[in-house]
Amino acid sequence: MTADIASGRWRADLMAGAVVAVLLIPQSLAYAMLAGLPAQVGLYASLLPLLAYAAWGSSPVLGLGPVAVLALMIAQALAGLPAGVSPEAGALVLAAEVGLLLALAALLRLDALASLLSVPALRGFETGATLMIAASQLPVLLGSAATGATLPGLALAMVQAGLQPLSLAWGSVAVVLLLASRRAGSRTLARLAPLLLLLGAMAVAALTPAAQGVAQVGALPQLSLPLGLPLLDGALWLHLLPSAALVALMTFVSSLAVAESLAQRRGEKLLPAAEMRGLAAANLVAAVTGGMPVAGSFSRSILLHEAGSRSRWALVFVAGFMALAMLLLAGPLAYLPKPVLAATIVVAVLSGFSLRPYREAWRYARAEGLLMAAVTAAVLLWSVGAALALGVVGSIALLIQRTAQPHVARIGRVPGTQHYRNLERYAVECRPEVVGLRIDESLVFTNARGLADVVLAHVRAHRASVGEPRRVLMLMAPVNHIDVSGLTALEELHTALRAEGLRLEFSEVKGPVLDRLKAVGWLERHDVSLYLSHHEGIQAGEHDLRPSLADMDAPGQL
Amino acid sequence: MTADIASGRWRADLMAGAVVAVLLIPQSLAYAMLAGLPAQVGLYASLLPLLAYAAWGSSPVLGLGPVAVLALMIAQALAGLPAGVSPEAGALVLAAEVGLLLALAALLRLDALASLLSVPALRGFETGATLMIAASQLPVLLGSAATGATLPGLALAMVQAGLQPLSLAWGSVAVVLLLASRRAGSRTLARLAPLLLLLGAMAVAALTPAAQGVAQVGALPQLSLPLGLPLLDGALWLHLLPSAALVALMTFVSSLAVAESLAQRRGEKLLPAAEMRGLAAANLVAAVTGGMPVAGSFSRSILLHEAGSRSRWALVFVAGFMALAMLLLAGPLAYLPKPVLAATIVVAVLSGFSLRPYREAWRYARAEGLLMAAVTAAVLLWSVGAALALGVVGSIALLIQRTAQPHVARIGRVPGTQHYRNLERYAVECRPEVVGLRIDESLVFTNARGLADVVLAHVRAHRASVGEPRRVLMLMAPVNHIDVSGLTALEELHTALRAEGLRLEFSEVKGPVLDRLKAVGWLERHDVSLYLSHHEGIQAGEHDLRPSLADMDAPGQL
Repeated sequence: MTADIASGRWRADLMAGAVVAVLLIPQSLAYAMLAGLPAQVGLYASLLPLLAYAAWGSSPVLGLGPVAVLALMIAQALAGLPAGVSPEAGALVLAAEVGLLLALAALLRLDALASLLSVPALRGFETGATLMIAASQLPVLLGSAATGATLPGLALAMVQAGLQPLSLAWGSVAVVLLLASRRAGSRTLARLAPLLLLLGAMAVAALTPAAQGVAQVGALPQLSLPLGLPLLDGALWLHLLPSAALVALMTFVSSLAVAESLAQRRGEKLLPAAEMRGLAAANLVAAVTGGMPVAGSFSRSILLHEAGSRSRWALVFVAGFMALAMLLLAGPLAYLPKPVLAATIVVAVLSGFSLRPYREAWRYARAEGLLMAAVTAAVLLWSVGAALALGVVGSIALLIQRTAQPHVARIGRVPGTQHYRNLERYAVECRPEVVGLRIDESLVFTNARGLADVVLAHVRAHRASVGEPRRVLMLMAPVNHIDVSGLTALEELHTALRAEGLRLEFSEVKGPVLDRLKAVGWLERHDVSLYLSHHEGIQAGEHDLRPSLADMDAPGQL
Repeated sequence: MTADIASGRWRADLMAGAVVAVLLIPQSLAYAMLAGLPAQVGLYASLLPLLAYAAWGSSPVLGLGPVAVLALMIAQALAGLPAGVSPEAGALVLAAEVGLLLALAALLRLDALASLLSVPALRGFETGATLMIAASQLPVLLGSAATGATLPGLALAMVQAGLQPLSLAWGSVAVVLLLASRRAGSRTLARLAPLLLLLGAMAVAALTPAAQGVAQVGALPQLSLPLGLPLLDGALWLHLLPSAALVALMTFVSSLAVAESLAQRRGEKLLPAAEMRGLAAANLVAAVTGGMPVAGSFSRSILLHEAGSRSRWALVFVAGFMALAMLLLAGPLAYLPKPVLAATIVVAVLSGFSLRPYREAWRYARAEGLLMAAVTAAVLLWSVGAALALGVVGSIALLIQRTAQPHVARIGRVPGTQHYRNLERYAVECRPEVVGLRIDESLVFTNARGLADVVLAHVRAHRASVGEPRRVLMLMAPVNHIDVSGLTALEELHTALRAEGLRLEFSEVKGPVLDRLKAVGWLERHDVSLYLSHHEGIQAGEHDLRPSLADMDAPGQL
């Protein structure tokens, strides 16, 4: 990083930092409100945690700070705090736990756990969270006092609470202005709009009586970083631990997803372990400087990349601009009408909303499309924790179900070639004395029990349509693994085939699979012939003039 | 079945029935004692449930009745009964729940759930149960009053309780006689030995004072089937439900395993759904006729097969012999010394004990060997429920871990052939302009995140050792499935390769995988060429004289 400074590349980072700070100022205030926290907490979380990530993280374009989806999770986590604990104190404990969990995961090299969140689970969750965030800001926009953790609960509360026309007016004007700035076609205007809107609204509210009766951010305490350890209350830590685990998982997965996709686009190499370390450091710093849990924001990361960020110095500059903004905004912020802040949230999150991922997933794989929709529904109707659990368990169940129903094809020779294909899809040639099979799945415990039945059914089909076989030759190229249950199933298959006077043979067994079979002497013990190619195996019988196949010295045996 | 009677094949079934009844009489008494129930419960469970299975089941050789492993599970389930509920009443409720759960599973076609119990989990569990059963009978054999649900607890209790020399004498003599009968070399003698021993012990104990002070079975109540509904106590049913679910799972899995392996040996087709129905009926009948949960016994099933059973009439004959035995034994059973009964259990279960499965699993796959040992240890040190849960979760974790680390090989041409093999294992030829890769795993969410990194690393290795490539040709034969996460990963790989000026191509894509890619128009959208064989794909560039690969009309595109 020092080399960058020396080489003058810092100018690009300074520019990128300025651009991102313009977006981060309104977002930090808004996401703090979304999390049910005072506005200044968002500002504190956008200061020193950025420096911590710059020091220990790895991506030059991760837009660290408060994030909308996490803010929703934080709000749900803080909803059930014990009496006497303020939301701010809870947020600090949560950030500390997230940081410690990430540090522990980095230490134990658990970064692979992130892969348990499949794309349908992650996208379904994010879309659900987007909708829930927009819904939760609707009452603020309308000047209603309604709150609710689920969509039906919120709708019911809103019907009962009614609305306040003046707040609605402020909110509507803000939404219209933000949408207009996006339609205007100028990227710079669209990016500046939220900050300009906030400054304008503060000015109008401070200088005219137009905001009388509308909820405002209110006077902030003296804006100095409240350094100090979070509450060391064992019961509170235990109470927040499950939520912290979910927040830590989302922090890592969503930050890594955007950092990795940008790294690939930039031709850079990203180290997941370093990323985890950087996120841990940022959250631990947030916990001792009055902040809230932080992560990499999708929109701000893209912006850092597009604005030309070249190193993590850009984040240092962002923090600098944020410090400046805090000094200048401390007074005026008191006047900011909350409906305007809510408008920036609603417009920002809904701009990313799309039904296309559901349609695409449904067209490609119905079960995964359904899972995506179910996870979204769980966020809206249940809770973020239940939705994430459903996503992980559902993905694993689909994976197991898939391996449980292996596709087994009888294959024949494409005439004139050495290629063998499924005889239900291609016009191929079969020889009566050998049943050629291809098993399109690893042989593992989920499918092992059914193997012998499926193979015997294919043998009967062969007998009925082609002729009396003497051998079953299995093309093993698609078998990537055989576990102990699979090996047991092969043994039973071997016995069952022998009972019918048939010989079991393999072709194109993969190196790693072969190594294991050899390690226990399985092939020798069961006298199973091996062929380097399926074609060789099929042809092998042609030149075989001996009376018994059982004692034949198989050609091509490896 | 009626046809069998008419054709006179019933004689074979009658003989097989007699042979199995000789084994079932001592086992039914012993397993009732093992489950902590009065001896007559075992006899009742060996009567009408057998007829129910004969009516609704499917296997002609399933040795239904009380089973040792289930008896241990029943003992643990009944250990925590609420005050005022007798073990007999608890066993009836348990049998009713097992029957209802199996009926429900049959209705919902949940028989595939049985595959969640992998071979290492099942074998580890059965061996652990075997050892625990033997350990639990040791105090009875020694005349000690010690009991305990875990091995350490039992050992501690035995040290404290001391032993009774006369019981020890009875037990030791019984063990020696049973072992001697097995060593004698006559199968008939070995099979008759337990029954002969019981009859002899009863005679000696009744006619001499040799058993004074030794625990005896004691006077049985009048031996008439206690017909009636089990206790309809909601709290009791709820209390026993988790145990019932485990017993139902083990009942189905262990019965199916032995029935399926015998069906394959006999060239018969077994219907898992019919098997589930038969087991449900048998347990429901056990619940209303004073019995205990029943399942298919491994030893008695093998015996039915070897003794020449041809239909389920054999089970009907077994039940007939059991009814006869009940009438004759009612009086003498009171004198039977319990150490003799314990001796038949210990010798029977330990004869099946072997460390070989652990050694073999360890040699074949260390992780699975460790899982097997861990499940066994959990039975001995914790509980049967924890052990089964560990087996299922552990098996799934190993499956996920395996798919998470795909084997990706750079492949080249075996000189003079059209075969392509891993260049780290074979002496093969590579061409500079194309990187040939083979991915030995389905592309699913557990491994999708790492795909682009692995491929780019291989591209760098190719660049360093072979030359500057223009294409990456992926051999897709081992890719059995691509889920939504995998598709997203391919999209990212495509973008990353394009950023380096490389073209992505596929060869030998499987039918089912191709269908899905085509359904969403993925190949056209990303302009990915397809080749029927990897060799064609590698050769394709040779005849390509056009300046740009990007707009080339790929030969072999399907």
